[in-house]
Amino acid sequence: MPGVVLGPARYGKAGNRVVRVVREGRTHHLKDLEVSIALEGDLEETHTLGRNDKVLPTDTVRNTVYAFAREHGIASAEEFALLLARHFVAGQESIHRARVRIEEHLWERIEVPGAPTPDGEVADPPRHSFVRSGRETRIAQVTVDAEGCEVLAGLTGLTVLNTTASEFHGFVEDRYTTLRETTDRILATEVTALWRYADRLPGAGSGTGAGTGPDEGPAPDWDARWTAARDHLLAAFALTHSLSLQQTLYEMGGRVLTGVPGVAEIRLSLPNKHHVPFDLSPFGLENDHEVHVAGDDPHGLIEATVLREGATARIPPDLVNAL
Amino acid sequence: MPGVVLGPARYGKAGNRVVRVVREGRTHHLKDLEVSIALEGDLEETHTLGRNDKVLPTDTVRNTVYAFAREHGIASAEEFALLLARHFVAGQESIHRARVRIEEHLWERIEVPGAPTPDGEVADPPRHSFVRSGRETRIAQVTVDAEGCEVLAGLTGLTVLNTTASEFHGFVEDRYTTLRETTDRILATEVTALWRYADRLPGAGSGTGAGTGPDEGPAPDWDARWTAARDHLLAAFALTHSLSLQQTLYEMGGRVLTGVPGVAEIRLSLPNKHHVPFDLSPFGLENDHEVHVAGDDPHGLIEATVLREGATARIPPDLVNAL
Amino acid sequence: MPGVVLGPARYGKAGNRVVRVVREGRTHHLKDLEVSIALEGDLEETHTLGRNDKVLPTDTVRNTVYAFAREHGIASAEEFALLLARHFVAGQESIHRARVRIEEHLWERIEVPGAPTPDGEVADPPRHSFVRSGRETRIAQVTVDAEGCEVLAGLTGLTVLNTTASEFHGFVEDRYTTLRETTDRILATEVTALWRYADRLPGAGSGTGAGTGPDEGPAPDWDARWTAARDHLLAAFALTHSLSLQQTLYEMGGRVLTGVPGVAEIRLSLPNKHHVPFDLSPFGLENDHEVHVAGDDPHGLIEATVLREGATARIPPDLVNAL
Amino acid sequence: MPGVVLGPARYGKAGNRVVRVVREGRTHHLKDLEVSIALEGDLEETHTLGRNDKVLPTDTVRNTVYAFAREHGIASAEEFALLLARHFVAGQESIHRARVRIEEHLWERIEVPGAPTPDGEVADPPRHSFVRSGRETRIAQVTVDAEGCEVLAGLTGLTVLNTTASEFHGFVEDRYTTLRETTDRILATEVTALWRYADRLPGAGSGTGAGTGPDEGPAPDWDARWTAARDHLLAAFALTHSLSLQQTLYEMGGRVLTGVPGVAEIRLSLPNKHHVPFDLSPFGLENDHEVHVAGDDPHGLIEATVLREGATARIPPDLVNAL
Repeated sequence: MPGVVLGPARYGKAGNRVVRVVREGRTHHLKDLEVSIALEGDLEETHTLGRNDKVLPTDTVRNTVYAFAREHGIASAEEFALLLARHFVAGQESIHRARVRIEEHLWERIEVPGAPTPDGEVADPPRHSFVRSGRETRIAQVTVDAEGCEVLAGLTGLTVLNTTASEFHGFVEDRYTTLRETTDRILATEVTALWRYADRLPGAGSGTGAGTGPDEGPAPDWDARWTAARDHLLAAFALTHSLSLQQTLYEMGGRVLTGVPGVAEIRLSLPNKHHVPFDLSPFGLENDHEVHVAGDDPHGLIEATVLREGATARIPPDLVNAL
Repeated sequence: MPGVVLGPARYGKAGNRVVRVVREGRTHHLKDLEVSIALEGDLEETHTLGRNDKVLPTDTVRNTVYAFAREHGIASAEEFALLLARHFVAGQESIHRARVRIEEHLWERIEVPGAPTPDGEVADPPRHSFVRSGRETRIAQVTVDAEGCEVLAGLTGLTVLNTTASEFHGFVEDRYTTLRETTDRILATEVTALWRYADRLPGAGSGTGAGTGPDEGPAPDWDARWTAARDHLLAAFALTHSLSLQQTLYEMGGRVLTGVPGVAEIRLSLPNKHHVPFDLSPFGLENDHEVHVAGDDPHGLIEATVLREGATARIPPDLVNAL
Repeated sequence: MPGVVLGPARYGKAGNRVVRVVREGRTHHLKDLEVSIALEGDLEETHTLGRNDKVLPTDTVRNTVYAFAREHGIASAEEFALLLARHFVAGQESIHRARVRIEEHLWERIEVPGAPTPDGEVADPPRHSFVRSGRETRIAQVTVDAEGCEVLAGLTGLTVLNTTASEFHGFVEDRYTTLRETTDRILATEVTALWRYADRLPGAGSGTGAGTGPDEGPAPDWDARWTAARDHLLAAFALTHSLSLQQTLYEMGGRVLTGVPGVAEIRLSLPNKHHVPFDLSPFGLENDHEVHVAGDDPHGLIEATVLREGATARIPPDLVNAL
Repeated sequence: MPGVVLGPARYGKAGNRVVRVVREGRTHHLKDLEVSIALEGDLEETHTLGRNDKVLPTDTVRNTVYAFAREHGIASAEEFALLLARHFVAGQESIHRARVRIEEHLWERIEVPGAPTPDGEVADPPRHSFVRSGRETRIAQVTVDAEGCEVLAGLTGLTVLNTTASEFHGFVEDRYTTLRETTDRILATEVTALWRYADRLPGAGSGTGAGTGPDEGPAPDWDARWTAARDHLLAAFALTHSLSLQQTLYEMGGRVLTGVPGVAEIRLSLPNKHHVPFDLSPFGLENDHEVHVAGDDPHGLIEATVLREGATARIPPDLVNAL
């Protein structure tokens, strides 16, 4: 079409649900991932002419996810994402950048006492039974090009509430103000957080497509980092005496930055899930911070990036809204 | 309209989100309920003539929920539902039956170490911070009329998975059969369960509308029962070597019936969430129960009631699907 | 387990998405169904002993849906459901009853002008392009046993709103009343409706499993009936000057009963989606039925069955809530 | 916190559902909007010190939405968004940029014949009854700072399907390829589109906060533009003989750019909703493009921006994923 050109483009496969079981004798281990992959590169003629000779089909992308789970295992969501992203960039000349996002569903072992057997003995309890745990989803997102890679981690769906230690006053008033100041209110939010690691990891330039090489030093312990970050988010939420949700956000972000090695930047999106005391005065009843209405909409929405001094804010604000 | 008559009718208010905080010194307690109420009775002329003189508005129904949370507290979802249901039947002549269903959202305390204070001491950790826990929702449903009441309890959203100890073979084959027999597969489901208690509790006949009277003996410990039922569901799922999801269902139901005092009947709805080994043979790879595809649809759906001998199945099958 | 017995049970496959295309020259036709099947019968030993010799696997049930779409076509959702339900009961001795529920997704043809061709002609517009239409989902549910069958039809997700011609006053007041009477308000609801046809259609006793036989007279025009019922629901909602949502419900049901041949009974579930004038008085502004807040929860919920005189109410109330 | 700084931040109120009715005699008009507002500016001390003296509370933001609907009406989603955005920037020194996003729910009038009156006349049909229409949601997003403003428009949820005229072949093959080439397949997608208008509209610098001034020329006809864009998207989808979904995307974008005045750029996100012929060969049946399985996951995901030559791509890719 005359006067029309192609801008930024990407394509891939979203929603690949891969569940990997490792059997270690009677003890089984479980990883449950939803993998989404977006590829960028030389896509011009695919769009303008319908030529597919530079297109690795999304069906192949999907096959690769499952084959890699078998060939390389899943050490962690981050490690698996790195393997896949490097593979696509190293393996196809026309692909210049790959973004792999993984949502990890969390499970914990069902703990049961040993079952009595017919002959009166007690059998060992099973080690192959799991229950979905937590309401949050763990996120890992890796972007790789020839030169390097960026690793983000995070979570969605972590819902927290303080019944006190939250105030809100001293705010601007204008013609449309009706809100009253308060020194004691419920503060509740559903945390979406995404943080960026500062590690300098190799890109796909080496062409091996097979992950961190032997001379790169040990891979970071991504699982331990994620768990630490989650713990710090909860602790900061609980320990902050809040003068605004913005202040709580800053404390949460700051605590992850200072408490988890290797985090350069964190973006938080915190809906203010209002809990308002129900007006019981028509019924001659007091309501001293006791009975609240919870509702879904509308809600305040507080979003910010917190950074290590000297770091650059690289996490796109809208990316966090898209999780 | 000639030739047209009114059949069964009910009305009420759904989705009342009430969050109650009890402050016991520094230690706060939290109940988070979503209350839905349906009233039956003399509704004929409301429908046919638009007369509202026998209608307690749903807005009033909502106010009552919040006022009762203040006036009577929330000992448990079941107890609160009983209070409300008896109130509506006892309080309005035109209302003959009330059904109160409560979805309870579960929270647990955020455990944090004490925070250092500016003067070098360590403050006690806060006791007012909570995180939503579990993926399941607790259900209580109470139906009251003049003569008596029925108490159901249950849960939705409890997702469990066995990586082995599940077989499926020996089934009927016909022209459309392609499934192969297996002696080792993943078994996964998202449990919806609803059980009925056998307790004979008073209805609304006494007209007090204010709950269990003084000479009715102590109220059952609804919370302990619910926790025990959940534990038994998990244990039966984990301990059953399954020849079919139907068999697992029966074991789960049976274990609740025999393990939890006062349960007369339980209805279970278990979607069979298929996890199929991904076919890696085109890539020259084996796949020995390791890498699976998980998907949402279509799914098997297994539903049954399990009863104490002599009990009558009273839980409507469709009710469980509507949770 | 001693003292424990099996109650009502059913099993099947839910969520089978079948899209059938019929090519009539350049003009293509499209049916988009989601088929869910539940089978009842001799399931005792499957549950108690794990014996599967009377179990037609749900995988086979799924295959049958797709094979039947090819072998018998899809004349209408109701006709297709009848074919399938009769097949399962007639084909397997252990299956005594089959319920087939179909959600039909609606599409309409994209109407475009003819495209200019390179040689200056105008090509005929394509007849193979469709856009999903309507926000409602059409429902058909058929239950078949040896003796007969029951056909239900309906819809979910039909959202309607009157900006006036709705009043609500003269209601009961009690201690918890705060609602004010109104003679002019918005009335909005999202209609779920399910109606039962009175046709006496053969069950699966003949054993053919292949639908209505040659001497049964022509099949009803299920599509025309459904369209007529939807039109009557909309017309009754629009034309009723409402004194309560209950009255509107009765008018909607009555109009379907009297306007659509063969309908014996209809069940309606109408959430009262409140639209409340926003209080603009703090800003010195009037608000004469102009600016409203819409919200999702809580909502009133009005449900009733309307019947032809002499008919029996057979649609389970909870079934409609489960759609 | 030492070593920690604040990065990009914004806050506001999301999910304000405003329904405005205009009564023009018996004929009523309806606008149904969900308004979300995000404000940026001098938020440093709010985060780091908990000072709120530069914070306009989100409660006030909400009030303003409803008050403006009364004071200024809602000419179109875009016009209403411009009014609000300019107000916040012009009205508060500490607010430097405002983004107003509106999701518009679409309704159409219920057309009914006139109703017979008791005295034998036929009343005019009501003009105050509406039914939600279309499955798509209209989007408007306006960003305003002191210097200027950016207007985006778009839609989500427009689901389309071609039963033929779609091919896919000539693609890259690697070790993980199993997909077969095809010259005739179903192509289906759910369109999310967001386009940017090139109009140079004033920002909030004038300080009036009250929209386009008298000497700015007439406001663009935003509604007509949006309808034209939607029509072009549908037409391009229907008329393109597709060699890949990428090619179809490019045609859709190009047609909007060339067909709708004032569009500088468009971003499209097109999930490839796979419809695969069901393998009926085990049952001895052919399947000539007739019976397909539809499924939700995984899906291909094709995303690109199409631009007028010389324009700059400004729509953030992740923004479109967040709609």
